[in-house]
Amino acid sequence: MNGNRFGRLFQVTTYGESHGKAMGVTISGCPAGVDLDTEAVQAELDRRKPGQSMITTSRGEPDDVTINSGLQDGYTTGTPIGMVIENKDARSGKYEPFVTAPRPSHGDYTYSAKFGTRNWGGGGRSSARETVNWVAAGAVAKQVLEQSEYDVQVKAHVNQVGDIEAPPVSFEEMLEHTENNEVRCAHPETAEEMRDAIDEYQQEGDSIGGSVYFECRGVPRGLGAPRFDSFPSRLGRAMFAIPATTAFQFGKGREARTMRGSERNEDWEFDDGDSHPDTVSDEGDPVPVGNDHGGLQGGITTGEPIYGEATWHAPTSIPKEQTTADWETGERKDVQVVGRHDPVLMPRAVPVVEAMLNLTILDFMLLDGRINPDRLDGQPGEYDTDYHPRSPDNME
Amino acid sequence: MNGNRFGRLFQVTTYGESHGKAMGVTISGCPAGVDLDTEAVQAELDRRKPGQSMITTSRGEPDDVTINSGLQDGYTTGTPIGMVIENKDARSGKYEPFVTAPRPSHGDYTYSAKFGTRNWGGGGRSSARETVNWVAAGAVAKQVLEQSEYDVQVKAHVNQVGDIEAPPVSFEEMLEHTENNEVRCAHPETAEEMRDAIDEYQQEGDSIGGSVYFECRGVPRGLGAPRFDSFPSRLGRAMFAIPATTAFQFGKGREARTMRGSERNEDWEFDDGDSHPDTVSDEGDPVPVGNDHGGLQGGITTGEPIYGEATWHAPTSIPKEQTTADWETGERKDVQVVGRHDPVLMPRAVPVVEAMLNLTILDFMLLDGRINPDRLDGQPGEYDTDYHPRSPDNME
Amino acid sequence: MNGNRFGRLFQVTTYGESHGKAMGVTISGCPAGVDLDTEAVQAELDRRKPGQSMITTSRGEPDDVTINSGLQDGYTTGTPIGMVIENKDARSGKYEPFVTAPRPSHGDYTYSAKFGTRNWGGGGRSSARETVNWVAAGAVAKQVLEQSEYDVQVKAHVNQVGDIEAPPVSFEEMLEHTENNEVRCAHPETAEEMRDAIDEYQQEGDSIGGSVYFECRGVPRGLGAPRFDSFPSRLGRAMFAIPATTAFQFGKGREARTMRGSERNEDWEFDDGDSHPDTVSDEGDPVPVGNDHGGLQGGITTGEPIYGEATWHAPTSIPKEQTTADWETGERKDVQVVGRHDPVLMPRAVPVVEAMLNLTILDFMLLDGRINPDRLDGQPGEYDTDYHPRSPDNME
Amino acid sequence: MNGNRFGRLFQVTTYGESHGKAMGVTISGCPAGVDLDTEAVQAELDRRKPGQSMITTSRGEPDDVTINSGLQDGYTTGTPIGMVIENKDARSGKYEPFVTAPRPSHGDYTYSAKFGTRNWGGGGRSSARETVNWVAAGAVAKQVLEQSEYDVQVKAHVNQVGDIEAPPVSFEEMLEHTENNEVRCAHPETAEEMRDAIDEYQQEGDSIGGSVYFECRGVPRGLGAPRFDSFPSRLGRAMFAIPATTAFQFGKGREARTMRGSERNEDWEFDDGDSHPDTVSDEGDPVPVGNDHGGLQGGITTGEPIYGEATWHAPTSIPKEQTTADWETGERKDVQVVGRHDPVLMPRAVPVVEAMLNLTILDFMLLDGRINPDRLDGQPGEYDTDYHPRSPDNME
Repeated sequence: MNGNRFGRLFQVTTYGESHGKAMGVTISGCPAGVDLDTEAVQAELDRRKPGQSMITTSRGEPDDVTINSGLQDGYTTGTPIGMVIENKDARSGKYEPFVTAPRPSHGDYTYSAKFGTRNWGGGGRSSARETVNWVAAGAVAKQVLEQSEYDVQVKAHVNQVGDIEAPPVSFEEMLEHTENNEVRCAHPETAEEMRDAIDEYQQEGDSIGGSVYFECRGVPRGLGAPRFDSFPSRLGRAMFAIPATTAFQFGKGREARTMRGSERNEDWEFDDGDSHPDTVSDEGDPVPVGNDHGGLQGGITTGEPIYGEATWHAPTSIPKEQTTADWETGERKDVQVVGRHDPVLMPRAVPVVEAMLNLTILDFMLLDGRINPDRLDGQPGEYDTDYHPRSPDNME
Repeated sequence: MNGNRFGRLFQVTTYGESHGKAMGVTISGCPAGVDLDTEAVQAELDRRKPGQSMITTSRGEPDDVTINSGLQDGYTTGTPIGMVIENKDARSGKYEPFVTAPRPSHGDYTYSAKFGTRNWGGGGRSSARETVNWVAAGAVAKQVLEQSEYDVQVKAHVNQVGDIEAPPVSFEEMLEHTENNEVRCAHPETAEEMRDAIDEYQQEGDSIGGSVYFECRGVPRGLGAPRFDSFPSRLGRAMFAIPATTAFQFGKGREARTMRGSERNEDWEFDDGDSHPDTVSDEGDPVPVGNDHGGLQGGITTGEPIYGEATWHAPTSIPKEQTTADWETGERKDVQVVGRHDPVLMPRAVPVVEAMLNLTILDFMLLDGRINPDRLDGQPGEYDTDYHPRSPDNME
Repeated sequence: MNGNRFGRLFQVTTYGESHGKAMGVTISGCPAGVDLDTEAVQAELDRRKPGQSMITTSRGEPDDVTINSGLQDGYTTGTPIGMVIENKDARSGKYEPFVTAPRPSHGDYTYSAKFGTRNWGGGGRSSARETVNWVAAGAVAKQVLEQSEYDVQVKAHVNQVGDIEAPPVSFEEMLEHTENNEVRCAHPETAEEMRDAIDEYQQEGDSIGGSVYFECRGVPRGLGAPRFDSFPSRLGRAMFAIPATTAFQFGKGREARTMRGSERNEDWEFDDGDSHPDTVSDEGDPVPVGNDHGGLQGGITTGEPIYGEATWHAPTSIPKEQTTADWETGERKDVQVVGRHDPVLMPRAVPVVEAMLNLTILDFMLLDGRINPDRLDGQPGEYDTDYHPRSPDNME
Repeated sequence: MNGNRFGRLFQVTTYGESHGKAMGVTISGCPAGVDLDTEAVQAELDRRKPGQSMITTSRGEPDDVTINSGLQDGYTTGTPIGMVIENKDARSGKYEPFVTAPRPSHGDYTYSAKFGTRNWGGGGRSSARETVNWVAAGAVAKQVLEQSEYDVQVKAHVNQVGDIEAPPVSFEEMLEHTENNEVRCAHPETAEEMRDAIDEYQQEGDSIGGSVYFECRGVPRGLGAPRFDSFPSRLGRAMFAIPATTAFQFGKGREARTMRGSERNEDWEFDDGDSHPDTVSDEGDPVPVGNDHGGLQGGITTGEPIYGEATWHAPTSIPKEQTTADWETGERKDVQVVGRHDPVLMPRAVPVVEAMLNLTILDFMLLDGRINPDRLDGQPGEYDTDYHPRSPDNME
């Protein structure tokens, strides 16, 4: 109800404001026996953290994560995992002009309308700083998936910045190129073009919108439930939770408006052993001919790659002069949102999108009993014994 | 978890399959004291029901609703409202070719993958017939809103069919024209064009995609919570729950990709009494200059009109010959999805979109304490007394 | 929030009032492939129904259940199961004195205080008639358990009526004797004594309290989660949901107040093959010496029998003259709650307690992945094929 | 599902193990504008903390709370409140004998059965140390209640230790005496007796059970919902979540077994201005004659004092020699649970019971719209302005 919970069985609960003391996230329902690599969690946070390049905000946050619970000898215990990330470089001073006046197109006014208060420090809870919690939780989810018997892979990249659109890229290209440039675009030439454009927007005191494309491989068939718990329904909820998202689509998306049924419908064939290398299919399985459906039919996974796209509007914090309305004085006034802000959101949104995908997929797998403690690679450490109370030999 | 629940305080729970005995919906959390007009509920169902025109399926369902509980003397009691709509014209015979083979691009295969069974009667639970439940619940929500102290209005219309796109229309035009044509497009000339095109697709044994535009007026400021319970997040979940949705956006939507911050950002001004006639604003209130934000900033309502668009792919049930894979014989076979099917989804999706909007808005209003039993117009009937236990005079 | 939902994965949602049109219950999350015996569901309802003996209300309700969805060829499909039970013998006339005055010790006044209305027909939603929905849902849960690979057995009996207390009985005696007498007490001599006492209370226009003892066998080890989802916590919620419950305990219960740690603590030994015949234990398993803990340690099942007791106060509807306060006239008045009422609640509460136990146990088993569609006995019927999409051979 | 969440609108989420790095609790849904006294939160934690007297464990935990989010200038912002309490005196060494063998009557074995791991450090998540989180959250709830327009008061005391039972005490005596003695019994003479008995048990290397009585004043009428969300149902869930609870009852509780309807039923009268001084009633209100119902009818509050009792078994950690079964060696072995343990649970359970009551009551009040941000005493600080976005003058 309060906007800080996600997941049904892999439950994430968060807290924290942009300029508060610390951000925090609790994971309830993480399976026991996962060999949790805390450095890998930190690595995901580093991909999202501010100050990582010239085209991100210069706010100096190390975003070091502390894990307070849920582990014994490096393995998850099945009990809640509490994580804290301190805010070290909050500077509220620069927000003073906005104590009694909303910044243009931010959440300032609406948060005040909802809560009846004005938490003016850097956007408070409405700040995208909150997504640090999601990336931490998503990094744990990713490891659970990696240690399961499935080979789920999730990758996103920036496919459009302003008018510059990247050509379609393969999943392999996404894996290879995305992390090699500051824009996180998997098409190197376009990435450079995007980089130059962003520089220009930044120099003009402006910002720009764009989109992120994602793809998921190896997701087993049958994930998702009818209707309100369908895969796209859950994913839609996740994507529109990311600050500044204005559109989301999967498969042919908006283009499906102009397609006939006979054009978009896909026949069924049998996998001949070579025909569907990118899917979970084995020889002899019924498989759809084509993937305009984006891996989802009836809201449930077909085993084909799941792909889609989310759009972000331009960051609203820009140095250019704008006008606001001061409700204390009853006067309008000209303002600049000075400070350390991102000229584009997408490069840092890439790890956030991946985190939400990992969280969504894992949650569905847990709901369908696809993740079994006994199947996880992780084994209890020094207290390892032949007697495993839940093993089929010992338990009824 | 099971896809049949929606809402946090105004909770909807549904059941029913396309070719089962009956559809059913339970509303938990409807405020007491609402003067429920059951004919108005039926009228909404009639807008969605099959057979209403030549461009909808000819399946003959009266969709008569029976209300089993939650009312006394025509007023809601605050306890659960149970409604049942019988399936009277289910004919499973025509689905026999698909008992062991999935229909192309339907949910047949994925439902089997999830549940391990084959409910072959007309798509079973994956059928859009389920939305009859949502429209019934939405019709109750609409009445609660109407009897509140707010003046919330919700309207949708078909803005695109295949390549035919309607020009922008005003909210007043939507109210006036939408229900006057079979396509439910608020622009009469375009509606005729769409109608002719649909006829043609139908004659060719084909179907076509399109989109629905919606707008909400009078929604109070401050609805929605941060992040996972933001207004767009909840709405995204609702829209992607509707069968065949492939894209959803609000405000500038996907177009925001190409907009600069300085272009999309909106200054704040004070309402001068005339400047914002379509909003909840009063003279002297701070108001944004423009509504590219679609009534939502930081995921919370600004009081400006909320607008957006959802895309549906073409209906997958088409008479044209297609090919499927029979898992019993291990052979492919040519099939036709004969029967009574819609050539387009959007005309009947219009009341479904409106229902999901009413449900979403009311749920948020209840969460913020905006709907108060004492403020509802409805009054208990013959047992009306001066002693109202919860009135401020009598209760602590 | 609205009091009509129970269960996390096996989700029950109910509606209906004592004197409304019908009662209804929706089960979401029932596994697919269960061979559902609808007569067995009816048989459980018959155990709870009114008019079954001289010591129950004479209201004439056949309590015939109609299943509207969730089945194909007699097997569950994994989609929601909607059930309806009509109210056929509601007579509201006799409640007229209470339209503006609360019946003594009923929920009349408090329901009005909550909802601001007066649903005076037979207690409306506060009536124990609601438990018909629970028994229907519990009967489905029971069958899922029966068709699982576990041998869970649940039984309850009336162990006290007024001052008459039954001596301890074995589980086998409970199975053998409980259903053979009107009181549902597993100790035949005491049952007769109780029967006579109840007759006397009834003839005096009075009613009497008592308690029900229950025991569960074969519940696997490890069910329940820490704290707020512990087995006793969930069971406590369930038991206090039953109308008129005033106390609940398990294991030594209230008697544990006077026990030392050294007296109540139980050592651990190894099962020698004979020592724990009534438990899920196999030879060589660590087992507690004794079962004062009632099958629950740290809120989680040990595999020993789970047992406990719930107390009901006397039915509040009695023919004896009482006094109430009429809020319309502002005067007190003498009243009799005439009509068809139970002089004791426990005989009809026995199937309700069993239903709540079955629902609670199954829900925990689903949460821990103990119920697997592939492990259920039920097999899809005529559409049975070698290709089972979720079988390990075919699915990743 | 994972046992670490409580509350529907005032949502508590916890983490932490007895011997982990830190305990943590997140509150979602706390109203904005509460003037939060952090010292008062700490004071509640001090009442629960170890080492506060000779009859509690000597583990040296200061239990200092750090609030990471949710506050601006000392007022709540309506966004999640994250709190952390570090574990400073964890010594896992003394648990080594129990790495491969369960402690008698602890949660060791069952937690291993559930999670398939052995978190042997001081009971891990099963430890009552978890309740520190509840007391922190309850202390916030208490302040929200105090700043509301209602005068809710909650108090508990130890009414029985072993065979020693305190005579009934008034609410005023509970307020006056409970905190003045180490046992937290409101009857001073009995408190001394209990104190001596506990000393004796402790010297014998043993422990003892007992019970806590509680009473709530000023709770408004109409709180609680039918059935599964009834007040006793929610409270039952809360009470059985507390470690070592074996019984819970309210009103006449278990004694109601032997009462006739005519004896327990309570007539209704009108408050004459003096007759119900301890309730929320005003002159002229209908009020029940007596309070054997414990403030709850039909599961909903009547406005009379709510009272009840919970039983705890003796602490299971005792120095006396006991025997366990080592699953690594397959041998039994004699063990002593040495360390720093409580000989009785009740004195430290008193603040835990009060916390759960405050959390339960506040949650119900939020559900019924009884707590309104505008009604809270707290006012935003330096950014206070005449423009309060949600005030009736400014908002629609």
